[in-house]
Amino acid sequence: MVLMAFHDAIDGYIHAQKETLWVRLRVRADQALRVMVRTEPDNEEVLTSMTPGQTEHGWQEWTAEIPTVGHHHQTRYLFKLITPDNSWWYGSAGLEAYMPTDTHMFRYAHDRQWPVWSASQVFYQIFPERFANGDSALSPVAGEYRYLDRVDIAVRDWDDAPVKATGGFEFFGGDLIGVKDRLSYLNDQLGITALYLNPVFTSQSSHKYDTVDYYNVDPHFGGNPALIELIEASHERGMKVVLDAVINHTSVMHPWFQAALHGDPDNRDRYVFDGQDYASWKGHKSLPTLDYANPQVVNDMITGDDSVIRHWMRPPYQIDGWRMDVIHMLGEGTGAQNNAAYLKLLRNVIKEENSQAMLLGEHFFEASSWLQGDQEDCAMNYFGFAHPVRAFLAGLDIAMDPIRISGEQFAAWLRAARARIPFTNQLLQFNQLDSHDTPRFYSMLQDDRDLMKVAIGFLMSYIGTPCLYYGTEIGMKGVDDPDCRRCFPWNRETWDESLLTHTQRWIALRKRLNSLSSGAIVDITSAADCLVFARVTETEQTLIALNRGTAISLDGTDCLPPTGKAWQCEEGNGTLDVAGDSWRFALPAKSITLWSR
Amino acid sequence: MVLMAFHDAIDGYIHAQKETLWVRLRVRADQALRVMVRTEPDNEEVLTSMTPGQTEHGWQEWTAEIPTVGHHHQTRYLFKLITPDNSWWYGSAGLEAYMPTDTHMFRYAHDRQWPVWSASQVFYQIFPERFANGDSALSPVAGEYRYLDRVDIAVRDWDDAPVKATGGFEFFGGDLIGVKDRLSYLNDQLGITALYLNPVFTSQSSHKYDTVDYYNVDPHFGGNPALIELIEASHERGMKVVLDAVINHTSVMHPWFQAALHGDPDNRDRYVFDGQDYASWKGHKSLPTLDYANPQVVNDMITGDDSVIRHWMRPPYQIDGWRMDVIHMLGEGTGAQNNAAYLKLLRNVIKEENSQAMLLGEHFFEASSWLQGDQEDCAMNYFGFAHPVRAFLAGLDIAMDPIRISGEQFAAWLRAARARIPFTNQLLQFNQLDSHDTPRFYSMLQDDRDLMKVAIGFLMSYIGTPCLYYGTEIGMKGVDDPDCRRCFPWNRETWDESLLTHTQRWIALRKRLNSLSSGAIVDITSAADCLVFARVTETEQTLIALNRGTAISLDGTDCLPPTGKAWQCEEGNGTLDVAGDSWRFALPAKSITLWSR
Repeated sequence: MVLMAFHDAIDGYIHAQKETLWVRLRVRADQALRVMVRTEPDNEEVLTSMTPGQTEHGWQEWTAEIPTVGHHHQTRYLFKLITPDNSWWYGSAGLEAYMPTDTHMFRYAHDRQWPVWSASQVFYQIFPERFANGDSALSPVAGEYRYLDRVDIAVRDWDDAPVKATGGFEFFGGDLIGVKDRLSYLNDQLGITALYLNPVFTSQSSHKYDTVDYYNVDPHFGGNPALIELIEASHERGMKVVLDAVINHTSVMHPWFQAALHGDPDNRDRYVFDGQDYASWKGHKSLPTLDYANPQVVNDMITGDDSVIRHWMRPPYQIDGWRMDVIHMLGEGTGAQNNAAYLKLLRNVIKEENSQAMLLGEHFFEASSWLQGDQEDCAMNYFGFAHPVRAFLAGLDIAMDPIRISGEQFAAWLRAARARIPFTNQLLQFNQLDSHDTPRFYSMLQDDRDLMKVAIGFLMSYIGTPCLYYGTEIGMKGVDDPDCRRCFPWNRETWDESLLTHTQRWIALRKRLNSLSSGAIVDITSAADCLVFARVTETEQTLIALNRGTAISLDGTDCLPPTGKAWQCEEGNGTLDVAGDSWRFALPAKSITLWSR
Repeated sequence: MVLMAFHDAIDGYIHAQKETLWVRLRVRADQALRVMVRTEPDNEEVLTSMTPGQTEHGWQEWTAEIPTVGHHHQTRYLFKLITPDNSWWYGSAGLEAYMPTDTHMFRYAHDRQWPVWSASQVFYQIFPERFANGDSALSPVAGEYRYLDRVDIAVRDWDDAPVKATGGFEFFGGDLIGVKDRLSYLNDQLGITALYLNPVFTSQSSHKYDTVDYYNVDPHFGGNPALIELIEASHERGMKVVLDAVINHTSVMHPWFQAALHGDPDNRDRYVFDGQDYASWKGHKSLPTLDYANPQVVNDMITGDDSVIRHWMRPPYQIDGWRMDVIHMLGEGTGAQNNAAYLKLLRNVIKEENSQAMLLGEHFFEASSWLQGDQEDCAMNYFGFAHPVRAFLAGLDIAMDPIRISGEQFAAWLRAARARIPFTNQLLQFNQLDSHDTPRFYSMLQDDRDLMKVAIGFLMSYIGTPCLYYGTEIGMKGVDDPDCRRCFPWNRETWDESLLTHTQRWIALRKRLNSLSSGAIVDITSAADCLVFARVTETEQTLIALNRGTAISLDGTDCLPPTGKAWQCEEGNGTLDVAGDSWRFALPAKSITLWSR
């Protein structure tokens, strides 16, 4: 017997007044003798018997009300199913033969201040200096200033390639007016609904991760008026705008640090000085680290009435969220000491300003502990998305070392990353194939267009909030920084129209099928080169089948609560033969196919 | 190619002055192109290249010094190995095809105040009321008092069976004089080196988990003088004594609670009253919960100069450690609020009194978060030992529901539990087959002596500190409480001499082979009914093969750094044929075999 059970956090809600959580588990009828839900409200096990309910299409509902953990920000639970000769556990990684560790417990976060709009967006990441030049009068000119007082800035033509040696201080002229001018392309043509902008505040560099003035948009980007116009134009279209905050460190040119260098004790205390030396981000002396042990720093950046974080969330800006740069490193002294305490403070301040604002953290690696409902809404999901996708499709790891994983390992990797965070945060996770900090995915695939299409389809169908790095849709290439930051080629003749059409179609699908943005995820089957999974809501189910290898036939089992409807192929050229509970997939080489019912 | 690498925390030590950790990884020669060790000292990845060293017996040493996490109580690390066409991660659960989550990182706890004596002991758990009656003049007599002022105590003959209805207040006459009188049996004959006693402080019940006087041993057990004599006699033999502290709640008969009931506000504040009602342990109104939000409670129990915890660690008692009852539930108000803060306080106080004292926590389920080096030394290891052993050998889970797991699942379960705690804490984990709170393991096995021998051999060879529940060695039986608390039958004619001899031999082996108490653990192979694992130190290796099924032949691969010596069978009737790196085991039905080299 293959035990079949199905639960996701959608199947639960808090009875706030009773301080209980209502949960539902659907189990194939006649399989379980008894079902219990296990909680630990005071760290001690409580097993609550679930009540069997009606049977529909051969599946039975079991429900229960369980105590929530009053003094904790989430309630964790597992299901125990007793069959005539065995017992099973069902947790956040699926059915298990024995009680799993707490990493595989379902987590229901009590905080309801998460951005409900987020998971249904299709984001687009823009590196403003390279996306579009809307007003050439604003562009930096040769000889205009010396970067860090050390070297003349380099000024390039739009079609030039970025140069490694001058990456941080070479300019092509992109600005926020350019972004605003292209909203129609992004929104109307491509289907993008939200923007994430790399830093826009005044800075001497092209990437602007070394802030000199937190209260003024860089004049080369058009200053504060350009940002206001961009946000207003975006909001008029119903689009959201998320900005990048770099508050772990400042530029060495920031007035605070300059004053500190000249001996001002108050400003010296904002940083971590040791004699003439000072702590800096990963040893880069141009990026002195702020010391959050100093209450003045906490006040200026986070908690104060006109703190940097609050300032841009208020009129006339009203940004929709913050992407927090290297947020895991922020803390007291030279390290990340008491990081969690400052993240909780940050969350409170952001939600005070706008309970629907998004708090997105940058993490190149595991961020599970930041994603438990009391700190971040979501992370740059390198760990649970970009890394496994890169390994599976490109055979490369984060350090560009070779890595070989099977479809089974790909499935297990994705599942392990998901299982450790609440379902809501899984939906919010910020999924990207690549970014300004990595080679472009197309280049990692060595320009394999078929695999690139698989990747884009997967990005749009996997759980989490998809974000395209600018130009991905037209086939932009580039290896590591600054080559991944080339200028967007607005001459349409250079575009890969096939990729663009494919991207448009998958974006449209993402927006049309509710299960892709809000559904639970169920692993169906996997093979050496394949992964098949489902996205499931109460009223809609989608099946997605990826194949990175040669054409193959693959079997699966229908383990989803039936809808009574037949599968329709929506995208791709795979076929699905259904015989009772048995599925047979025929998947073309290097393909992705999606069915819905 | 099967990549072979080997590391355990023994292969590392802190350079305290340099604030670095020296680590060593042994890798089969010519397999790895590069090896790195990964840490996150300020939450950001640091990859440190390891230096290849000498090759011996075909294995190469790679070493590195890595930064420790200055403001954290432990340093976590992983190894990354690059081969010509792939990369691998090596963490606390072994080799992995991709970077694991933080649960599989090696953890090096900085605290050096762990009891170095503990893992080399063989413990014996005694339920004092049932082990031996050393002075019948002390024994409770019929009509002596009414339990909780409600019901006459029941007095039984030594050979009577405990009765469910009167379990908590029936008495057979065991005392601490009896324990002292049997030290020769325990130490000289059986080989026991340490005692863990269920509660001995004054209480009306037979189990004494409802304390009435924390400063006086129950007079029926012989009072404080009997405890002093027992400890002195034990210490003279080099034996250790660990007592049971019940400080989450008191008896309803404790003077504090009686005063509270009579309206004394100070004493009322020690508990969690809501009108006339009050919080109690799992709803048992005879066990009112102490409120650690009250500083007086914290002072009286933990931190004060003559606190309960300190009192018994000082002369004339000088106990060697505390077993903390239901410690996960202790905290503020009705729940376990701020539990971790009180555990850290408790650790500090205990180590202040005696840095070598053992802090053992009771946890029926996962205790990983208490075992990271800053709270407990070890837990009652139901989660990582008793539960999997019971499932594998008896087919029963903690709730006595059926559970079927294979040898492969048994291995994975044990490994997952180990991987999440530092190596030192793995060595300290308090392993038991059963206790006063569970049916006896022999009864769970339905009196299957062969499987009971497998279980005892496994207890003595697995990583962690073994503890026998009294009478296990002579074949005592009993289902759940109070049947598992029968009196020890001192008439030797009733003993199972075969089991006793087997237990004596495995205890002797445990004490003779250093690798069993201090060695790393390596999974070798597993099958439906079998598990083969190794224990490894620098100078000694042991191989242990369990088979719960019928006689079987099983293959394995030698993946251990060679010692240059040949395997010797030390116990059991299995055979091992070695051909180069290939091992073939022939394992008799229901058997355990141990080899060393």
